[in-house]
Amino acid sequence: MTRAALDVALAYHHAWAGGDLEAALRHVADDVVCEAPPGRLEGIAAYRAFLEPYVTQLVSATLIAAFGDDDTALVMYDSVTQLVARAPGAECVRVADGRIVHSWFVFDRAPFMAARAAVVGSGDAEGTPS
Amino acid sequence: MTRAALDVALAYHHAWAGGDLEAALRHVADDVVCEAPPGRLEGIAAYRAFLEPYVTQLVSATLIAAFGDDDTALVMYDSVTQLVARAPGAECVRVADGRIVHSWFVFDRAPFMAARAAVVGSGDAEGTPS
Repeated sequence: MTRAALDVALAYHHAWAGGDLEAALRHVADDVVCEAPPGRLEGIAAYRAFLEPYVTQLVSATLIAAFGDDDTALVMYDSVTQLVARAPGAECVRVADGRIVHSWFVFDRAPFMAARAAVVGSGDAEGTPS
Repeated sequence: MTRAALDVALAYHHAWAGGDLEAALRHVADDVVCEAPPGRLEGIAAYRAFLEPYVTQLVSATLIAAFGDDDTALVMYDSVTQLVARAPGAECVRVADGRIVHSWFVFDRAPFMAARAAVVGSGDAEGTPS
């Protein structure tokens, strides 16, 4: 069994897990559609805007499991971020012509929302997070 | 390649997706350890208490992807619940002796928390959700 989609998903994963957002996005199609917790993201610009805050504050990411075939790959990982100490996520990607064209992106927004609220709550009078 | 863990994960999935919590739990070991969004769950009683409210209010669940081998399986699904219209989740399970002994459970708690807050907010003076 070949596993072209898994290879793409792993290359994408290892790029962002290493902090290289631009390298990760080279594995994503310009017209990607992503079903993410906040809703549907359409196009690489929206995808970049969604991923960038997470990758920017990423401390480390560890692969939990990755499986796939030629068309579809499914990856789960744990991650540590500056805001949230344990932030696992899962992505199911469909690959065409060597790039991710569709993605289901699952993670728990609750600890990020709580951490952001705490940062804002502890900020100065202008509400600027430190 | 054999895929005993995937077979168990799919049997478990289809049982709860069909609303049969007891049948699902027969695929889970008594001493299961589950890394879930609220934290680590230890033992089948804690696992049942975690899963029961979700299965009780489940409307439908649709498999997005499932992969695995003899030891590990990774499953992603979308679901519709009475509280939340779109509730995707992912589970990575490790199987031993035919039952799930370890699980990573990923889903977004944010819409459930928002929906519960809205239900409580619209309840009567005693705050009893309908």
